[in-house]
Amino acid sequence: MSHTVEILSVGTELLLGNIANTDAQMLSQGLSELGLNVFWHTVVGDNPQRARDAVALAKKRADIIITTGGLGPTCDDLTKNVLAEAFGKKLVFDEGSAQRIRSYFQRTGRPMTGNNLQQAMLPEGCTILENDWGTAPGCAFEAEGVHVVMLPGPPSECRPMFHYRAKPYLLALSEGVIASHTIKLFGIGESTMEAQLRDQMNAMANPTLAPYAKEGECELRVTAKASAEEEAQALLRPTVEQVKKLFGDKVYGVDVPSLEYVVLEGLKAQGLTLGTAESCTGGLIAKRLTDIPGSSAAFKGGIVSYANEIKEGVLGVPAPVLEQYGAVSGEVAAAMAEGARKVLGCDIALSSTGVAGPDKDDRENQVGTMFVAIATPKGTHVRPLHLGNRPMRERLRTQTASHAFDLARRYLTGLDYGT
Amino acid sequence: MSHTVEILSVGTELLLGNIANTDAQMLSQGLSELGLNVFWHTVVGDNPQRARDAVALAKKRADIIITTGGLGPTCDDLTKNVLAEAFGKKLVFDEGSAQRIRSYFQRTGRPMTGNNLQQAMLPEGCTILENDWGTAPGCAFEAEGVHVVMLPGPPSECRPMFHYRAKPYLLALSEGVIASHTIKLFGIGESTMEAQLRDQMNAMANPTLAPYAKEGECELRVTAKASAEEEAQALLRPTVEQVKKLFGDKVYGVDVPSLEYVVLEGLKAQGLTLGTAESCTGGLIAKRLTDIPGSSAAFKGGIVSYANEIKEGVLGVPAPVLEQYGAVSGEVAAAMAEGARKVLGCDIALSSTGVAGPDKDDRENQVGTMFVAIATPKGTHVRPLHLGNRPMRERLRTQTASHAFDLARRYLTGLDYGT
Repeated sequence: MSHTVEILSVGTELLLGNIANTDAQMLSQGLSELGLNVFWHTVVGDNPQRARDAVALAKKRADIIITTGGLGPTCDDLTKNVLAEAFGKKLVFDEGSAQRIRSYFQRTGRPMTGNNLQQAMLPEGCTILENDWGTAPGCAFEAEGVHVVMLPGPPSECRPMFHYRAKPYLLALSEGVIASHTIKLFGIGESTMEAQLRDQMNAMANPTLAPYAKEGECELRVTAKASAEEEAQALLRPTVEQVKKLFGDKVYGVDVPSLEYVVLEGLKAQGLTLGTAESCTGGLIAKRLTDIPGSSAAFKGGIVSYANEIKEGVLGVPAPVLEQYGAVSGEVAAAMAEGARKVLGCDIALSSTGVAGPDKDDRENQVGTMFVAIATPKGTHVRPLHLGNRPMRERLRTQTASHAFDLARRYLTGLDYGT
Repeated sequence: MSHTVEILSVGTELLLGNIANTDAQMLSQGLSELGLNVFWHTVVGDNPQRARDAVALAKKRADIIITTGGLGPTCDDLTKNVLAEAFGKKLVFDEGSAQRIRSYFQRTGRPMTGNNLQQAMLPEGCTILENDWGTAPGCAFEAEGVHVVMLPGPPSECRPMFHYRAKPYLLALSEGVIASHTIKLFGIGESTMEAQLRDQMNAMANPTLAPYAKEGECELRVTAKASAEEEAQALLRPTVEQVKKLFGDKVYGVDVPSLEYVVLEGLKAQGLTLGTAESCTGGLIAKRLTDIPGSSAAFKGGIVSYANEIKEGVLGVPAPVLEQYGAVSGEVAAAMAEGARKVLGCDIALSSTGVAGPDKDDRENQVGTMFVAIATPKGTHVRPLHLGNRPMRERLRTQTASHAFDLARRYLTGLDYGT
């Protein structure tokens, strides 16, 4: 396929800055993985003339137009009207969609107004994209050599509508399947990862290899196109193995959602329990674990020991250790983890202490000086971190929590603790 | 002013979906507050021809073009080249900018390459927007009746560059000042708030009143335009007072960053300390408090008692209470808060327990059944919550944490606990 795509978003709330255009991001990522080239994002408000102009332009320069928003009754179904008009199509009433809308309101117990049924008016001859996540159906059609796909605007509807409805439609255009795997890495910088892969990435056509970085972690998405699923998987396998070999124990999983997820799965598989003792991360390690449904199977609880007296009184960190080394020290990190293991009665405990900023601590430790530790039946290990003196409290805390998880996954998989 | 604005973002990373266009959101919000109408967002990649086409179109339909991105050496300063060309301007070397770039690299200790100095090439006769947050200077000029403002792409640079550099430039166009206040509310739904204000909002021209909603909270931004600051403030004052009166104790602050910030300020002002005992929120309450620099002045620490044995063993919730009422109950929420107050040695303790989903608990409590409690020197109060049976774990947890903070700010300001 060598299609060019324009994403056209309709919504005054985007132009007022009430929300960011996360639909366009999600779609861009998904479309790129399908091998489709997104060349333009355009946003217009709920204004018929500007929407018409935008569609006229998109029709000239793209051969796939994907719209988001403007499908509901509050904007008079602006998008459907404008697109249908631009391609000389009538809107016709679709009884199936009407029934789905009626039953949606029945199911949710909300009152239905007359203009909700207007959403059942759809361009003649279109493919209806049923909306199981809201009321407005999407639709797709081909006319004048251009494919048009209309999706609802709310991200909670747009995302599943793209994955479960639009994607199959777009895949059909390509007469093949797309498959991908995501390799997750921790403990390597984005630029280092890219430098090690650049030549290879540029030389690859199928599968392709795309790097992403966020919040101190990296991922590599390997995507292959083939005529059948097994063939695509066969194309993917050697690249996935090659990348895993290249980055060794920096790879913490393939197709897994997060480092903390891997830790929880490891704990559950081995029947072990986890507890936490947090100072600088202030509850973030526990929060990230409990973001995951079912975490209670392995996570017992934690102590946020922000004040030294909690470190001493609740976790049992000896006063002389606090006195001699200061709260931001490897010794205190170790004592916190060991204390948590005892107090919480868990097999493994993780701890954090450090200076998240914006100021140095009273012992002149720089912002970004952090220690994470793990206490296990086999002993305690401390990892000192120097995350750089940048005034980004949130990022420092996130990275520190991730380092704590990295210690746990290394323990659980029998790796050395690395650096 | 009745200007029309187009925001033109240049960056392949946006079209690949690596990042969302949060610059466009931030700018749209800021520009709307200045009374400028943003009619279009356009995104193109690092491609000279498509960038040229986009600029030619923007020049025709907008009289203010704000660009983001494409200023650095990795994209050959695409944006500056294309904009200068479109308006028949040459790029000239600016020694002041060059010096700033050199000293930036000296300061951060990073090596400077020759093409970093290319960033000191700027359109002839432009206003230079000095970049104190990165290397690429921004710039602004007026030509052919169109104002052009170019800003760097990284959000950590774009945001301050807009507020401290572009805004003063744009304000000068309007021969006046814009002032605004943000009124923050908790405990009222967006639709209820809007319904109570709709007629008023529509009837208002100066000041204007704009509602925003996020994560279970609401805010109202009141914005006034006038020839001088005092005059703008005089216009704002009655509306702010009127809104405060209308919504009473649902208003938790004006121009404050968050509910937890208000709680921390209240604690510090009264010399009180806070602790937490969290079950369903799993560390989120502590995390939100410790997100705030300086929180250690009032926040001592917390217990994440995910497992019942931690509720019992660490917090001292009596086994018969857990047995009789179950972990998800007002009785346990109260005992958790009281236990935390004792164990952590703090003046006030907040607690949470509930079913965050996706499944009911073993006593058939529905997802969204939550209890938050506060224990103080004057006694304990429990607030039961029914947050609806929707599978949005993250949102349920955020709202539950906010309700706990609401109890604290009500206690600290002498209000009744409300509902």
